[in-house]
Amino acid sequence: MEPYGAPQIHVPHLLNVNENPFGPSEALAQAMGEAVRTAALDLHRYPDREFEALRADLGDYLAEESGIPAPRPESVWAANGSNEVMHQLMLAFGGPGRTALGFTPHYSMYPEYARDTFTSWVTAERGPAPDFALTAAQVSDAIARHDPHIVVLASPNNPTGTALDLEVVRAAAAALAPCAGLLVVDEAYAEFRRAGVPSPLELLPEFPNLVVTRTMSKAFALAGGRIGYMVADPGIVDLVRIVRLPYHLSAVTQAVARTALAHRAELLAQVELLRTERDALAAHLRAEGYTVAPSDANFLFFLPRGDRRAVWQGLLDRGVLIREVGPAPWLRVSIGAPEDNTAFRTALTEVDPA
Amino acid sequence: MEPYGAPQIHVPHLLNVNENPFGPSEALAQAMGEAVRTAALDLHRYPDREFEALRADLGDYLAEESGIPAPRPESVWAANGSNEVMHQLMLAFGGPGRTALGFTPHYSMYPEYARDTFTSWVTAERGPAPDFALTAAQVSDAIARHDPHIVVLASPNNPTGTALDLEVVRAAAAALAPCAGLLVVDEAYAEFRRAGVPSPLELLPEFPNLVVTRTMSKAFALAGGRIGYMVADPGIVDLVRIVRLPYHLSAVTQAVARTALAHRAELLAQVELLRTERDALAAHLRAEGYTVAPSDANFLFFLPRGDRRAVWQGLLDRGVLIREVGPAPWLRVSIGAPEDNTAFRTALTEVDPA
Repeated sequence: MEPYGAPQIHVPHLLNVNENPFGPSEALAQAMGEAVRTAALDLHRYPDREFEALRADLGDYLAEESGIPAPRPESVWAANGSNEVMHQLMLAFGGPGRTALGFTPHYSMYPEYARDTFTSWVTAERGPAPDFALTAAQVSDAIARHDPHIVVLASPNNPTGTALDLEVVRAAAAALAPCAGLLVVDEAYAEFRRAGVPSPLELLPEFPNLVVTRTMSKAFALAGGRIGYMVADPGIVDLVRIVRLPYHLSAVTQAVARTALAHRAELLAQVELLRTERDALAAHLRAEGYTVAPSDANFLFFLPRGDRRAVWQGLLDRGVLIREVGPAPWLRVSIGAPEDNTAFRTALTEVDPA
Repeated sequence: MEPYGAPQIHVPHLLNVNENPFGPSEALAQAMGEAVRTAALDLHRYPDREFEALRADLGDYLAEESGIPAPRPESVWAANGSNEVMHQLMLAFGGPGRTALGFTPHYSMYPEYARDTFTSWVTAERGPAPDFALTAAQVSDAIARHDPHIVVLASPNNPTGTALDLEVVRAAAAALAPCAGLLVVDEAYAEFRRAGVPSPLELLPEFPNLVVTRTMSKAFALAGGRIGYMVADPGIVDLVRIVRLPYHLSAVTQAVARTALAHRAELLAQVELLRTERDALAAHLRAEGYTVAPSDANFLFFLPRGDRRAVWQGLLDRGVLIREVGPAPWLRVSIGAPEDNTAFRTALTEVDPA
């Protein structure tokens, strides 16, 4: 087996791992440095194992972003990236003899979280391209067929960009409820969803078996900071607290996360621009005759005309790195800054002519 | 089950979790803040998944500290605390149907690493108090009896403070070698060992199944920074790379760790003082008639005269928090700054009179 990971290649236009192209401003970097300078004076002490202040800040942010009542700190949990959150959830609710169900095409790490917790990973298929939709009936049928302990849905989904109707989430939570199965909705790309698309956060009061995970890697442009989080019933958080490694979230990480949350106006303003760029690039590709999956995320999943490996390589040769991921022959391109997106358009015209 | 963790109580003298009492200087805190300010400008990008620069710095430090040739970066690995390193090792080499062996009394987290990777945890006893020694014969016998896939030794051991002879480590590594079993030596407290006590790092060239783990929490006074690491054959590191969560070590953590390593002269100077304080406190307690386990760590394991819970509570009532851990009726006290150690002496005289 090989370690997971996209190639880390340095070219001018990095559109392969759905990073936010806009780094923190000088002022925000300064504020983070200052927060860490202050925290550093206490670094000889173990960090607050329960990171109460960060959990409260995350709850406040979610209330503001999604219009839900602010979740109490006991309903919020964070870890080093949403992949650690997912690992902790699978450890608490999965394990040998237990099964987790996902819907393909899905994020390539899900089977690894299952593997690393000795949980069986089974899959059902999403609907046909280019919509890759999921219906309440599809989800309920797959749950009835596999009888899983955990179901992982993603909204918006990676690599397709598809958001879910709340009815689909409701159907999954209800189908799992009689056997106390856990429903995890991975909302890593939530902030990029189009106007009017609801968040499954709204359903938390209805379903005590629902977990919504998020990350600061994408909308908050903090991929390098490694902060993922989740909201759920406090009973679920308490089970995760039992399997988490003690002091898993460093005082430095807590300080950086809280600084980013305090500066969210600046960071989230860029999300608006990325959504506009996404919609413009999707319209452009469609006008050029490409099939593009509807996207509520900061990337587009599209069907090249030529061989996907040749198109990927041709783009890379022109300084544009995208990702060969998901079912062939689709390709995924992250939404970059306007100049990245322009470079992608230009290079694509050269390597994948009509 | 309850989450792991010592109570986080705020009193003037925190001598319960073997923290280093000396925080980073203002100058070092400033340097860490500056390193994070610089790193922050790139936080929208995922961190270097292989943290090559940090691995090289750690190798250089170990060469300087232990007199071994600098381990190559491929032999070094780091994670968010040595508990994540241990979790990764148990995940790669343990799992359902596999067994890990430790020697009691040992660090209370070892069974949790085993539990969280579905590895069976079995134990054999260390020698009798107050030495809690381990011999080559004891270790070889226990390995023959349990036939484990992983053996965890600690040198110096927590909570007893006992360092191991290299002959004991050699015997364990050799006993495990025919079945490709892994020997992990937890050297979290290595830098506090007394003059002339060797490090098992010296044995790495002899045994490809030997892993030595360390942490920056103790000697480097970085408990809040969460940086543990290990040295082993590159083949072992490669297996850990397969089970690690991708991008587990944030760019911020990498920056803070490298800054601490660059300022090691300042941080390690305080280790000298702590070793002197430890030896002085051990001599004082023995002069007062206490039995104290020989210690190569930054804590002492001692036998109170009175009931251990009453002594613990009496000390806490006087603002001195120590730890009720390990076999009754022993108590463990961390070595603090001179004023902490004086407060402990004074309070102990009051609550545990001769």
